Amino acid sequence: MNVTLRGRSQPFRTVTFDLGKNTVQLIEQRLLPHEFKIVGARTFRETARAITDMVVRGAGAIGATAAYGLAQGARAFPGKDLKRFSAHVDVVFQTLAAARPTAVDPVNAMNRVRGEMTRGQTVAEQQSLALAAAEEFANEDVRHCAEIGGHGAKLICNGMRILTHCNAGWLAFVDIGTATAPLYAAQGQGKQFHVFCDETRPRSQGATLTAWELAQQKIPHHIIADNAAGHLMQRGEIDLVIVGSDRVLGRTGEVANKIGTYTKAVLAARHQIPFYVAIPLSTIDWNLKRGLDIPIEERHEHEVLGAWGVFSSRKSELGKPKSKQRSYVRVANPASPARNPGFDVTPAELITGIITPAGIFKPKTLWDRRGQLGFVD
Amino acid sequence: MNVTLRGRSQPFRTVTFDLGKNTVQLIEQRLLPHEFKIVGARTFRETARAITDMVVRGAGAIGATAAYGLAQGARAFPGKDLKRFSAHVDVVFQTLAAARPTAVDPVNAMNRVRGEMTRGQTVAEQQSLALAAAEEFANEDVRHCAEIGGHGAKLICNGMRILTHCNAGWLAFVDIGTATAPLYAAQGQGKQFHVFCDETRPRSQGATLTAWELAQQKIPHHIIADNAAGHLMQRGEIDLVIVGSDRVLGRTGEVANKIGTYTKAVLAARHQIPFYVAIPLSTIDWNLKRGLDIPIEERHEHEVLGAWGVFSSRKSELGKPKSKQRSYVRVANPASPARNPGFDVTPAELITGIITPAGIFKPKTLWDRRGQLGFVD
Repeated sequence: MNVTLRGRSQPFRTVTFDLGKNTVQLIEQRLLPHEFKIVGARTFRETARAITDMVVRGAGAIGATAAYGLAQGARAFPGKDLKRFSAHVDVVFQTLAAARPTAVDPVNAMNRVRGEMTRGQTVAEQQSLALAAAEEFANEDVRHCAEIGGHGAKLICNGMRILTHCNAGWLAFVDIGTATAPLYAAQGQGKQFHVFCDETRPRSQGATLTAWELAQQKIPHHIIADNAAGHLMQRGEIDLVIVGSDRVLGRTGEVANKIGTYTKAVLAARHQIPFYVAIPLSTIDWNLKRGLDIPIEERHEHEVLGAWGVFSSRKSELGKPKSKQRSYVRVANPASPARNPGFDVTPAELITGIITPAGIFKPKTLWDRRGQLGFVD
Repeated sequence: MNVTLRGRSQPFRTVTFDLGKNTVQLIEQRLLPHEFKIVGARTFRETARAITDMVVRGAGAIGATAAYGLAQGARAFPGKDLKRFSAHVDVVFQTLAAARPTAVDPVNAMNRVRGEMTRGQTVAEQQSLALAAAEEFANEDVRHCAEIGGHGAKLICNGMRILTHCNAGWLAFVDIGTATAPLYAAQGQGKQFHVFCDETRPRSQGATLTAWELAQQKIPHHIIADNAAGHLMQRGEIDLVIVGSDRVLGRTGEVANKIGTYTKAVLAARHQIPFYVAIPLSTIDWNLKRGLDIPIEERHEHEVLGAWGVFSSRKSELGKPKSKQRSYVRVANPASPARNPGFDVTPAELITGIITPAGIFKPKTLWDRRGQLGFVD
């Protein structure tokens, strides 16, 4: 997608590789939306640290980062001894896999890269194949998101007002994103529409990341409090809802996503507004039998009790922030505790369709179409 | 209600009058929840300024403040000339009425006080009657809230988990509040229950004021993000919802209240959770014929784009705030605009009952019971 740098809008991927410097180039996402900065991880250990420290986040983006990191580590090996090279690659793999232990994407991505590279006969061949495989992994992520965009864009008509929740945007993938892909594709087709970004408390990913993406891409939008969507729907000001997902149950069509998604689905159903979920096929969980079994992470209460932002004196309150350093402020009553469930589960009957690279499916038909959707028995 | 001062819990009204000093005593609400401080307005002009500057806010509280302010101004008159006294009282009345021009409560309250005081034959008699009338106005507010509490407490059983939205608490009235009155009354009856306070973005009145009140009153509670209530309802963790209202339409039973109230009512209906609205009779609007005609204030976007809180360094993030000065931080993407509707309208069919000092009514029966509910043709 496009980023405005020094006044010029230019295309940019979330994760790229600098061949000459053997460096993984990342958007420093912790500084967004207040500052845009590219950082280079010069060694596989720095790449692992960037994953651990959340410089880069999001399923597709950390998958590609780990894939590039494995190639980076392999390419840094100086000798020609294939056995020692292989032992070195093991260390690289383990280091990157340990960077975010609960995520499946880095390990899946690296298994793909290792599978490809071990077809090489020499260290040099394997190094070259590793990079090609990492590049192909990133390109495939981009392709899948583009396919989601192609299918989803058909749902968007001129003049529509579209609600999003949280961020399943290009920052979470290599490019284009999932929930945002239909927006960018429709924009590419010259369609005119308006986006409402749910703030998405407590971590405010809608107000920070999604709004930043849309602003870079020059898509007209407004941020709204999570409380406001119901009122806007009631007044006929929202025509379509598109969200992402952390896990879609292939057997039931239930959708786990950021806390508040369920509420928006209930409201959309009441107002007969189509509600779509956009995902890559890797998000489908074919094993779990019911949504109640999806573990809902209870996150730290300080997220609910305060907010992170750029300090702005009372005088500059309505103008531009004075400094770019983010601070945490305690908003809530100091003596009060909070509950902070991070995700919720939306039942299939509230979901109009699941937008995937393979097409758009009614949530309850996923299991019947599992052959087409990458199910492996 | 109770406030903990110097480690001791003691009863406190939001607005009181110091007879000896001829001073209106107010809780400095702008410092809450981070600091509790009583301020004394020593002249009727200072009292007017306290209303203007939001030292005191909420329908019942500013009504009582204006009533006391009128008595205060009348009592400050030094002479015995009834005509000059009357001209002076006019100035006091106009000054206090202009303090919050869109509010009806101060004017209604002062009309009551002036009606009573003019029964006096001398300046001294009128001064004395003014104070008695102001005291009676405040006492009546307390009585009405207590009656709401008495009716509402019958809905609360041991072990219940109750959701609230925004703050219609004792800070908005002279004591006890409306939406909170059933909670305090049930506590007084020895009932055990738990409260979930919606944060209530963008101004966070739930996280700040309601949570502060409940903490002072030692009622067990958790603050939650506005996004979380749907999930808690889905998991069976909420048994009852009670909110306040800014305007209830006597003809239709529709309820205007803080943005997000409608969303909670839709969710409660889906989960068959009783949804109640607690109000004094003065909140009923007998004129408007439909909720769509209620003007919805679009407030400044900076409320949505940021948050007010007490600065807390990263180190102290999980501990107590370091300083008590509230600052504004910009949370959202700097280049993005926001929409900020301040209120929404909930239709009668989503509301189980309206809790009033006169009893609990189905929202659609208000018009039929208008005689009982203070309707004046």
